[in-house]
Amino acid sequence: MSHVVKKRKLDKTRQDRLYFDSYTDVTIHEEMIADHVRTNTYRMAILNNSESIRGKVVLDVGAGTGVLSMFCVQAGARKVYAVEACSIAEQAVNIVKQNNMEDKIEVIRGTVETVDLPEKVEVIVSEWMGYALLHESMLNSVLYARDKWLKPGGIILPHKAELYIAPVSDPVVEDRLHFWYTVKDQYGVDMSCMSDFARGTCSPTRPASPSSIYTRDRGGLRSVKGKFNFESFGSAAVNAFCVFFTVTFPCPDKPQPLVLSTSPFKPETHWKQAVLYLDSPVDVVQDTVVTGEISMFPSEESARHICIHVDYTIGEQKRQSKTFSIPDWSSGAQS
Amino acid sequence: MSHVVKKRKLDKTRQDRLYFDSYTDVTIHEEMIADHVRTNTYRMAILNNSESIRGKVVLDVGAGTGVLSMFCVQAGARKVYAVEACSIAEQAVNIVKQNNMEDKIEVIRGTVETVDLPEKVEVIVSEWMGYALLHESMLNSVLYARDKWLKPGGIILPHKAELYIAPVSDPVVEDRLHFWYTVKDQYGVDMSCMSDFARGTCSPTRPASPSSIYTRDRGGLRSVKGKFNFESFGSAAVNAFCVFFTVTFPCPDKPQPLVLSTSPFKPETHWKQAVLYLDSPVDVVQDTVVTGEISMFPSEESARHICIHVDYTIGEQKRQSKTFSIPDWSSGAQS
Repeated sequence: MSHVVKKRKLDKTRQDRLYFDSYTDVTIHEEMIADHVRTNTYRMAILNNSESIRGKVVLDVGAGTGVLSMFCVQAGARKVYAVEACSIAEQAVNIVKQNNMEDKIEVIRGTVETVDLPEKVEVIVSEWMGYALLHESMLNSVLYARDKWLKPGGIILPHKAELYIAPVSDPVVEDRLHFWYTVKDQYGVDMSCMSDFARGTCSPTRPASPSSIYTRDRGGLRSVKGKFNFESFGSAAVNAFCVFFTVTFPCPDKPQPLVLSTSPFKPETHWKQAVLYLDSPVDVVQDTVVTGEISMFPSEESARHICIHVDYTIGEQKRQSKTFSIPDWSSGAQS
Repeated sequence: MSHVVKKRKLDKTRQDRLYFDSYTDVTIHEEMIADHVRTNTYRMAILNNSESIRGKVVLDVGAGTGVLSMFCVQAGARKVYAVEACSIAEQAVNIVKQNNMEDKIEVIRGTVETVDLPEKVEVIVSEWMGYALLHESMLNSVLYARDKWLKPGGIILPHKAELYIAPVSDPVVEDRLHFWYTVKDQYGVDMSCMSDFARGTCSPTRPASPSSIYTRDRGGLRSVKGKFNFESFGSAAVNAFCVFFTVTFPCPDKPQPLVLSTSPFKPETHWKQAVLYLDSPVDVVQDTVVTGEISMFPSEESARHICIHVDYTIGEQKRQSKTFSIPDWSSGAQS
């Protein structure tokens, strides 16, 4: 059985600020808590929904350090089941005690697919989003939990997710891919073919200056698809598409729902944006049309890993097709 | 069966320079190739041993992109078996072709424990070192390969490894651990107990200014042990020990052997140094004596993960004991 656990990559800027480099569990949780956009939007969303939470039973799917569970108690929850498969659950138990919430929060070590709750719940809260929304995400665990444990009329926070795509122009991408051409001069070994291999992978990256975002597609479940249509303003060399997402929380007392956005135009989050490199840069001028279709689907190796397929036409160029995978950096570690 | 694969953490400075953030396989190999201290020392060592390599058969354990195999061909090897368990082996095949070395280098996908070579070898080359030398290292695979495939009188590059320990004074460590105390003010949740948890982990880190290195211990196999004895010069607050290593290559034509060092006093490598936090900083003054014993041994969960146990006495303080583990950041992902 494979637990559903997000592998989080440490934030570069956080590493900078703290002069620290680590792949420990604790640092990953530190990064998530310190991602103010993430943590504060969840806190505001939970407190804004206190009318739905007060006196109610909540399920926190993939609770981590239990921070969302504690926000729910702050919002008046009668009981919170904090389900977490990883060893960080032991720390969640300590933190719950330190906050005198042992009577309200029950930390349960296990996957939501296998744990047995003593009752159904009125609220599900989860921070389930992976890179490009769906990569190694826990969405399916949340949907499973909804079908099994949520009472009719119950609420899910967040309740909506949207995926976005945009063509980007980033000269750093080209510099980076050029590295493999420099190996021969340094060591006498030609590794230029690695550059093509690198173009076939996509990585969470913050584009230096994304050109524009013109369209959006709705996300859902594991496999999603959508058309896009952009018109350039100004001239640039497009060398990638970038993919990002928003999730939305209902806000009964506010005119607008609360949105957690990973857009490159919004404050940076630890999710950054996924960047899909083109095989070579394409020059666009004012009003050049970029059209195409994007689909995201589970990879053959692992249902939790996604592949991203993009069909696109830039200006007068003929239609191109490219499939991107996000290789697990420890792939091959188990057989 | 569990393949022997090093999980490499990306280098912060490299991420800075390239404005990029990724956990893809390709980026990890890019980082290793770009680690000039690592790659160039291996290249010099292999070329310096060309008398032992020319016309001989070589086994490259954990070949990755095959760069060491190609250095061996540059040094005159008749045949190189490049054994690699990960999918990067497919790229190694491409790179070998691009360098017209298909007749000399045979890339074999698999672990050295399971592959069948058509002949015994005169040389084993491997870059097997993990964090703190032994964490997730391939040393045991190299020793297995030596016993099974190396002809009597054959050579291993590198042929010696040494572990070092030093007390360090780094105010950033304390700032970092203080983060968990700030969560309450921000979000109303007390997470200060995470600070103690964080102190129990060790992470590859470059200390800002390590105080001094006075002693060393010899490494070997999986479990190693050694005493240390330092005397302070000047005053400082010691808040950690740091552990690093060197590996040494024979150099028949040179007065000195070639040393690949991960010392904080040498140019930085992607290994950095492992930092073991004390429970609280201890002030030392001129001539304060720090004594103790360090042992490294496989963790209970995984033979490839190491624990580090340190017994130490600082000045007049009573003897302290602390065990450090390097948690896998994806621990709990499999069950």
